[in-house]
Amino acid sequence: MSKLLDDVVSELSRLPGVGRRTAMRLAMHMLRMEEHDVMLMTQAMARFRSDIRYCSRCNNLSDGDVCEICSDATRDRSTVCVVEQVKDVLSIENTRQYNGLYHVLGGVISPMQGIGPSDLKIDLLLDHLASGDVREVILALSTTVEGETTSFYISRRLQACEGVRLTSIARGIGFGDELDYADDLTIAHALHNRRPL
Amino acid sequence: MSKLLDDVVSELSRLPGVGRRTAMRLAMHMLRMEEHDVMLMTQAMARFRSDIRYCSRCNNLSDGDVCEICSDATRDRSTVCVVEQVKDVLSIENTRQYNGLYHVLGGVISPMQGIGPSDLKIDLLLDHLASGDVREVILALSTTVEGETTSFYISRRLQACEGVRLTSIARGIGFGDELDYADDLTIAHALHNRRPL
Repeated sequence: MSKLLDDVVSELSRLPGVGRRTAMRLAMHMLRMEEHDVMLMTQAMARFRSDIRYCSRCNNLSDGDVCEICSDATRDRSTVCVVEQVKDVLSIENTRQYNGLYHVLGGVISPMQGIGPSDLKIDLLLDHLASGDVREVILALSTTVEGETTSFYISRRLQACEGVRLTSIARGIGFGDELDYADDLTIAHALHNRRPL
Repeated sequence: MSKLLDDVVSELSRLPGVGRRTAMRLAMHMLRMEEHDVMLMTQAMARFRSDIRYCSRCNNLSDGDVCEICSDATRDRSTVCVVEQVKDVLSIENTRQYNGLYHVLGGVISPMQGIGPSDLKIDLLLDHLASGDVREVILALSTTVEGETTSFYISRRLQACEGVRLTSIARGIGFGDELDYADDLTIAHALHNRRPL
């Protein structure tokens, strides 16, 4: 077998969800692409891995020392939304409903996976709050055991911050979800937190 | 959003079966990989696209002018197995049951997709047969309408080649397949071509 083909299949197989069969399909697709376009792709990958940084304020991915959002003067600096991962920032940005800042923890507390509070960027969040600009911290973590544990831990750490309101995004039945597919805990919570129409 | 991240997500989304969400997951995985390993991957991709060639004898992918299989002196030069695509060569090689040469057509005749006989490497196959070494041509194409049409077309073109036996791989019920999931044509064919135990 061609060493060039063998190499590209082996390398692509390192990616999550890509087995040798998929890697082969990707390699064959690359042959149908213009060589120039393949070069643009590999350059974008290499540049991303070598040049990307983490924002020194919010830990979001950033091209420079401070990310686009943190350095955007039109954003509301009194609100910080705490999320687990970079992609959560994108999910919230896509809604165009939020104009505050973010703070990316980089994960959730998970003793099973050996991730403790010190592995998350919680001190960086406290540093940010110490600046005194922030009036509200919105926790937008997963509703898993790990997410809830992390929310609880952060709420304890933030008790010392005076003048900062701590909130959580609403839990309930999602739009488009059917009630009989929702779990008991979600339904119970949704019932308990019912709102006037 | 970070331009570096935006670029890599856009570029990876060009791959088949990769949407923006998957591209995002791949990008995040690249951050967890060693930078050196990401460079090895992008280099393997770029090198594959720029340096890979098609074997001038069998049209298989090749690092040089003639592929590993065609230049392997231990292979049986009297047999040529005709397949649609490069990955079919790998599928047959994986069985370790075949020691002849291959011929990669590069597709099948498909009027719907505008692929005619002249788009396939059929003349190259005839050139090969003209050398006089080949005693048997095994057709191993798909059992689709396009595959059968192509097999029929090749069989007509090969009628002029004297002393070359034309065969087809066996059709029937695959190992591990259940009879009630097989289609009528396959079952009928398997019955008709029954063999003594």
